[in-house]
Amino acid sequence: MNTNDAKNHLDKVLDTIDANIDASIERLFELIRIPSVSTDPAYAADCRRAADWLAGELSGLGFEASVRDTARHPMVVGHDHSGEGPHVLFYGHYDVQPVDPLSLWNSDPFEPKLVPQLNGDTHIVARGASDDKGQLLTFVEACRAWKAVTGKLPIRVSTLFEGEEEISSPSLAPFLEKTSEELKADVVLVCDTDMWDAETPAVTTMLRGVLKEEIEITCADRDLHSGIYGNAARNALQVLSDIISSLRTPDGGVAVEGFYDGVEELPAAVKAQWQRLPFDEKGFLGDVGLSIPAGERGRSILEQVWARPTCEIHGIIGGYTDEGFKTVIPAKAKAKLSFRLVAGQDPEKIRVAFHTHVRARMPEDCKVEFLDHGASPATVMPIDGALLQKALGALTVEWEREAAIAGTGGSIPILGEFKRKLGMDSLLIGFARFDNRIHSPNEKYDLSSYRKGIRSWARILAAFAERD
Amino acid sequence: MNTNDAKNHLDKVLDTIDANIDASIERLFELIRIPSVSTDPAYAADCRRAADWLAGELSGLGFEASVRDTARHPMVVGHDHSGEGPHVLFYGHYDVQPVDPLSLWNSDPFEPKLVPQLNGDTHIVARGASDDKGQLLTFVEACRAWKAVTGKLPIRVSTLFEGEEEISSPSLAPFLEKTSEELKADVVLVCDTDMWDAETPAVTTMLRGVLKEEIEITCADRDLHSGIYGNAARNALQVLSDIISSLRTPDGGVAVEGFYDGVEELPAAVKAQWQRLPFDEKGFLGDVGLSIPAGERGRSILEQVWARPTCEIHGIIGGYTDEGFKTVIPAKAKAKLSFRLVAGQDPEKIRVAFHTHVRARMPEDCKVEFLDHGASPATVMPIDGALLQKALGALTVEWEREAAIAGTGGSIPILGEFKRKLGMDSLLIGFARFDNRIHSPNEKYDLSSYRKGIRSWARILAAFAERD
Repeated sequence: MNTNDAKNHLDKVLDTIDANIDASIERLFELIRIPSVSTDPAYAADCRRAADWLAGELSGLGFEASVRDTARHPMVVGHDHSGEGPHVLFYGHYDVQPVDPLSLWNSDPFEPKLVPQLNGDTHIVARGASDDKGQLLTFVEACRAWKAVTGKLPIRVSTLFEGEEEISSPSLAPFLEKTSEELKADVVLVCDTDMWDAETPAVTTMLRGVLKEEIEITCADRDLHSGIYGNAARNALQVLSDIISSLRTPDGGVAVEGFYDGVEELPAAVKAQWQRLPFDEKGFLGDVGLSIPAGERGRSILEQVWARPTCEIHGIIGGYTDEGFKTVIPAKAKAKLSFRLVAGQDPEKIRVAFHTHVRARMPEDCKVEFLDHGASPATVMPIDGALLQKALGALTVEWEREAAIAGTGGSIPILGEFKRKLGMDSLLIGFARFDNRIHSPNEKYDLSSYRKGIRSWARILAAFAERD
Repeated sequence: MNTNDAKNHLDKVLDTIDANIDASIERLFELIRIPSVSTDPAYAADCRRAADWLAGELSGLGFEASVRDTARHPMVVGHDHSGEGPHVLFYGHYDVQPVDPLSLWNSDPFEPKLVPQLNGDTHIVARGASDDKGQLLTFVEACRAWKAVTGKLPIRVSTLFEGEEEISSPSLAPFLEKTSEELKADVVLVCDTDMWDAETPAVTTMLRGVLKEEIEITCADRDLHSGIYGNAARNALQVLSDIISSLRTPDGGVAVEGFYDGVEELPAAVKAQWQRLPFDEKGFLGDVGLSIPAGERGRSILEQVWARPTCEIHGIIGGYTDEGFKTVIPAKAKAKLSFRLVAGQDPEKIRVAFHTHVRARMPEDCKVEFLDHGASPATVMPIDGALLQKALGALTVEWEREAAIAGTGGSIPILGEFKRKLGMDSLLIGFARFDNRIHSPNEKYDLSSYRKGIRSWARILAAFAERD
């Protein structure tokens, strides 16, 4: 389809989406009713049923679709090259979290309900309504509308739906390796993220990576009595506390040598946009009982949690920690900690630098052991990319609100797999809201997220078809 | 008895001790056979039996002796003012630790055995042989020899034997308060400590005090996800580690402001004597797998553990500490720690200074709670006291080795009670060895500790009778 075709047809496509929204909802309900809980072997057949249902829908739209076996739950792959120009790979997952505790649900988690709200919103309440069945179908339904109006898609589209996202995607990396030729496209589209707020769409372009480490320090070969050895014998908890304390600079940065090598300042355009975002710094901390930001001085909270690397201590244990008191000099002390990483930081280099930092602070007669709990680099989309700019533009038109370039402090390891195995960047565009209770009882997806999500993808496909 | 009398009779007293050592051993065996385990109510009648036995022995020697009830196990008080000059109060305890695990004993713990060793030593093996029945009777048997030879004691003697030492002496303070007029003497003699080594006698003159504290730090009102809040939200384990680390100066001292106020340098004479002691610094640390002294630089290990105050961390817990990994920002973190104190340090002042130190390092939006686990000041005998010098002289003659002025890093809270309730200093003179396995299976007391211990006390009583 050439650019003018897409532009000319878009209004009709959007009308079709609105006209057929009830049928779109009914299809979402069908998918939700399949209890595809990936972690529980009792639902293995349901996972396959969900995969078959998706492949059937794609085939019905004219995709070349198939269900592919893995060691556990199958993948669904689809291709539709009826369009021209850019080639996107849309990723989503059809598996869901367990529903326990069932007693906290107001209705059957696998019997979706439309629940009107006092403010005029309508919630689709069910397990998977938001994460990720509702979000996934926004894209499929957008394709359906294009096919209905024009008989084809504006661009070349491939799809990959997995059934193991909620159990850490064990089959994804080997599957991508096997299918790298087949799945290689210009960009991955991922619909598993939130809007900025109920009115403001967002493209998430920055996800921090993470390096997870555990250290165990051993000083004496047994616990000692502090009356006899106190002062003269090294105390493992003192050594550990000194090391943990040494990880931060006085102004809140991370003190590991070379930690910030390669870390770039936020592009001015992004910084400016974030300053325009209606973010309530006081409320963000106040909601959890805090009022003073920690971390690097002089940087906003959004910048700190989205775009700056950090070091966090997750657990420390050592010595006597039960009721009462014991004047022991502990021989051993343990800590779990992680570094959240941003673009430019190589997890393996940071790991080596961290080990060097710790070893340099170990008394010579004590020892330290490191336990590796995994690592993944940060994911960052170049914000001047044409596809990103087109997506932002399409979202801004649909929602009549400037689309935000967002970050997220957490990590989505699958993005790293797409980058490593297929060399592809990802665009994260989602219509969920932060209050969707994903993974919790009474999960919901706003009906407006679904309808305007479908419309948003219809617009994005048109925008991608435009010649640069 | 005047000085010359005592001097003239001493040789005969020592001969009497040696001639009657078998009867002395038999009396020790009788006391050991009474299973006076204070912590176990099943042995309450045995505790009273041990008290009655001791009162009977004292009465037999001409003491005015009686068994005094307390809330739990009775005290035995004796007085013999047949002598002249100084008045001493000899303290010991007749209760013993439980014997579990019985299976690790080579013989019945309450049926004492003389067990010859390959090196020519003989061990008295039984529960309480060393702690404290054997040590306690060295003094009683010395009195017996003096009575046998001269019909009286060289000086005025009172005795106090308790039955609750192994359960933290709950009745001692109230008892001392009630009997302060009756028990007030010039000095307390305590026979519950070790020799320097198998050949070198020692008087322990310094015992460190202790201040025991627990702190709990609370930052956010719940645990947070480090992907969302990492960097911006305060981490309780980071705050705690910073505080713990701040307690030590770079050169190993304690950094709490005013901590060393009132702490005096070791007297030159003591320092010189400690340098002469055959103390194996490498062996002391090597035995527990260490090689580099911690604590204050430039001070010997003996000085550090006996005469310098310290801060030790006994336990830290916070966040996720089980198997695996959880990227939580912990809301709470706890530590137990203590300060060992020396002469000149007031535990209550140190407590206030410690709280001030912690509060000054708390972020304003976080809070800290302190839990008091008790405190006791250090105990230090003036080393230029006449009685101490006389005791050192008597020990040096008996053992033909310069008696050591020793410290101990631990605390013996009863000494504080004697000081507080009766205003009396204590002289700690004991003949145990560090390898006596007190509180453990196969506890032993060396036969030579017993015989030469009795002889030592006989000499000390004579020395105390000498005019200054």
